[in-house]
Amino acid sequence: MLSLTLDTSTSLPLVEQIVRGVREQIDDRLLRGGSRLPPIRQFATHYGVSRFTVVEAYERLVALGYLQSRRGSGFYVQSRDDSGPVRAAEPVPDRALDVAWVVRSGLDAPDEQLRASAGWLPPSWLPEEEIRRQLRAIAREENPRLTRYGNSMGYLPLREQICVRLAARGVAAQPEQVLLTQGASQALDLVARHLVRPGDAVLVDDPGYHAFFGNLRLQGARLIGVPRTAQGPDPEALERLAAEHKPRFFYTQSALHNPTGTDLSPAVAHRVLRCAEQHDFAILEDDVFGGFQPTPTVRLATLDQLARVIYVNSFSKTISADLRVGYVAANPALIAALRDLKLLTNNTSPEMNESVVHGMLIGGQYRRHCERLRERLDAARASTLRMLERTGCEVPYVPSAGVFLWVRKTGVEDAAPLVDAAAQSGILLAPGQTFRPQMQASPYFRINIAYGGDRRLERFLSQYGPG
Amino acid sequence: MLSLTLDTSTSLPLVEQIVRGVREQIDDRLLRGGSRLPPIRQFATHYGVSRFTVVEAYERLVALGYLQSRRGSGFYVQSRDDSGPVRAAEPVPDRALDVAWVVRSGLDAPDEQLRASAGWLPPSWLPEEEIRRQLRAIAREENPRLTRYGNSMGYLPLREQICVRLAARGVAAQPEQVLLTQGASQALDLVARHLVRPGDAVLVDDPGYHAFFGNLRLQGARLIGVPRTAQGPDPEALERLAAEHKPRFFYTQSALHNPTGTDLSPAVAHRVLRCAEQHDFAILEDDVFGGFQPTPTVRLATLDQLARVIYVNSFSKTISADLRVGYVAANPALIAALRDLKLLTNNTSPEMNESVVHGMLIGGQYRRHCERLRERLDAARASTLRMLERTGCEVPYVPSAGVFLWVRKTGVEDAAPLVDAAAQSGILLAPGQTFRPQMQASPYFRINIAYGGDRRLERFLSQYGPG
Repeated sequence: MLSLTLDTSTSLPLVEQIVRGVREQIDDRLLRGGSRLPPIRQFATHYGVSRFTVVEAYERLVALGYLQSRRGSGFYVQSRDDSGPVRAAEPVPDRALDVAWVVRSGLDAPDEQLRASAGWLPPSWLPEEEIRRQLRAIAREENPRLTRYGNSMGYLPLREQICVRLAARGVAAQPEQVLLTQGASQALDLVARHLVRPGDAVLVDDPGYHAFFGNLRLQGARLIGVPRTAQGPDPEALERLAAEHKPRFFYTQSALHNPTGTDLSPAVAHRVLRCAEQHDFAILEDDVFGGFQPTPTVRLATLDQLARVIYVNSFSKTISADLRVGYVAANPALIAALRDLKLLTNNTSPEMNESVVHGMLIGGQYRRHCERLRERLDAARASTLRMLERTGCEVPYVPSAGVFLWVRKTGVEDAAPLVDAAAQSGILLAPGQTFRPQMQASPYFRINIAYGGDRRLERFLSQYGPG
Repeated sequence: MLSLTLDTSTSLPLVEQIVRGVREQIDDRLLRGGSRLPPIRQFATHYGVSRFTVVEAYERLVALGYLQSRRGSGFYVQSRDDSGPVRAAEPVPDRALDVAWVVRSGLDAPDEQLRASAGWLPPSWLPEEEIRRQLRAIAREENPRLTRYGNSMGYLPLREQICVRLAARGVAAQPEQVLLTQGASQALDLVARHLVRPGDAVLVDDPGYHAFFGNLRLQGARLIGVPRTAQGPDPEALERLAAEHKPRFFYTQSALHNPTGTDLSPAVAHRVLRCAEQHDFAILEDDVFGGFQPTPTVRLATLDQLARVIYVNSFSKTISADLRVGYVAANPALIAALRDLKLLTNNTSPEMNESVVHGMLIGGQYRRHCERLRERLDAARASTLRMLERTGCEVPYVPSAGVFLWVRKTGVEDAAPLVDAAAQSGILLAPGQTFRPQMQASPYFRINIAYGGDRRLERFLSQYGPG
């Protein structure tokens, strides 16, 4: 039977204590191969920890090869005889696994749960009709491109259209500077693989996009958080941290920052670039939510013209996450290297999917769809803000556009217990801790305004009290 | 003006000599920023090297940030002032870049060139009509899956179908053991990233699949070639090399091996697995051409039941390379780890593309299409073999199925000059050297029988003489 001693007074995280404790018992044969671990809820109640914590620990133990997850049945100790030699040569860094679990629970959650923090819009907001129309158009004519490997850089007509849109943001680029990828995720991954050597310091927005933090950690990067303000990254902090840590690059979102919703101001943009020039680091500018802005605020790529800035974007948030169409734009030598890395690791991207996006851009449907999206989001934001005020929540930065609100409940210092309580009410919230580079505690949680009108959320927030 | 000294008598490859020579001249400011390098043909003639060599060198210099390629104009020395800080922290390993150039030249070659070694079938052989029918079917109904992120493991109905097909090859697997990926390339990449630490030895078929060799080198693996025989890997060599190098895993293709077309025999399969058990290494079994077999020959996964074998496959060769639908099947703990790595680095795969494949499998169209493909390939193989005999070529291993022939011209000891001569006649051939782990010289080249009937190829081969 499982018997652990957990100490909430030490600095060692509870998840880590559980993982180590279970591993020891398995290694010492106190837990036999094939025996079943306590169900998550039972474990949490017995040891007085959150279920979030237990799941993290169990999942980490699965990935390390100690436990086996049997659907519908629970977690079992892996039998040593059949575990094979295929465990990782060394454990995947813990924090990266935490993030993978967070990402997966958002993706695979049952539909009846309220995804109040989802990083994407519900299907009913997205242009499914349009996508189907594009598929019919593609299916109407003979098209040998449907069966063969695409161009190494991606579908040229889409790259040309992207250059037109970059020009509208004041960024001059040639199609040879635009590499299509399978979503912004792949673009970010290629940059991380190409630039990061183990031990490199990387500056990141704090809070920021957690999934990429996990990726950077996998590459062995040391993440240094640059606090986010209402005008973008804190420039003094950036200058101090750059001088101290000599980072490889700074990963940041300039417009409609995820999760705070803040926009980079021109003055801060200028200081950020000067700092990058002074300390000779690159800038990885992620603009995946930028399409929600009615008029673009400043981008680092605009001031810099892709000399030092590596610009990443996608159509996943405004059109469809299923199509997986994104891109990176940068100076030509870097694009050539990223193209080669893409070919060696994942081969070409699907021109079929890229054609769907292209068709929507040139037909004007994309522009009209974004206008409707913005109207709908503006209405949802207004009513969500009213709901949050009614329920005793604060929103320090009110964004002008976009999908998110960065929220705290008055009097609540740590959002993790609030998030756990929400889960018991069938509401999936992402706590601020998830978005911080070292998962530091945070009083905030992220709200997706498309779900802000759901009564379950208002009921929960009004009832929840700290302590 | 460019002035190099090249020495063909040393062991340092010519490509490397050119790269170093140009770099030195640029670093010493003997070649100024903005100045144009000699055109490829002119360089090759002047220095008496193949154009293949010159292009490799120029491309490597572009990726290192020394040169800039201007479309339609040539190669120019990159101005130092605007090269920015974004060169790779250290040069990408040379051999990996060679492979990227080979892959890219195959993909982006102008249509008038004869791709006599292509790794895929021409569009006219592939089921484009069927794909379009599936797209119309998808477009007919409302489907919220078209706009949202897919399941973290990939489209479940396709995973279930894959389990049915695996069962037909004698491999018992649950859908939770099957992870969908964007082509076999991504599956192989995930395994490499998860298992390989820099300096690890990896055993590979020699010759074998060059693009993945490039990927493994990027991960820092040391490639150890296991010679291929008519019955699969040479078992004595495998046993000796495993004992000496203590490999992390053995990467091999059991059926219709690329490029030799050979199949693993049951006796060799048994010895391979015993060796893996004795020396405790994993096996990465790549089956992407297996669908061309009328009846399956033995797979390592069948003897092993996915305890130690990691099985990778895709629909790129039989259906479409543009869809990018592949998978990896393995023991559950490893699949969980690969799933997390996939999520962290590339997010989910497109269920739209996976639905197209699924529709073709359950409707029976896939089976009928493969039957027609085999008939067509059998006819092409017979006529290509006759042509090769007429033109003084030898084919030591005649495969029973599949796309390739592994060919040498009688009296030719090194295929590289033959390949270069072919390029000047507008024929793209892949020399055997490309497929060898350390790019060792080889008298062989790979022929794709779908192009075997092109008169240009017969004319070239009959005219070409060694020396």
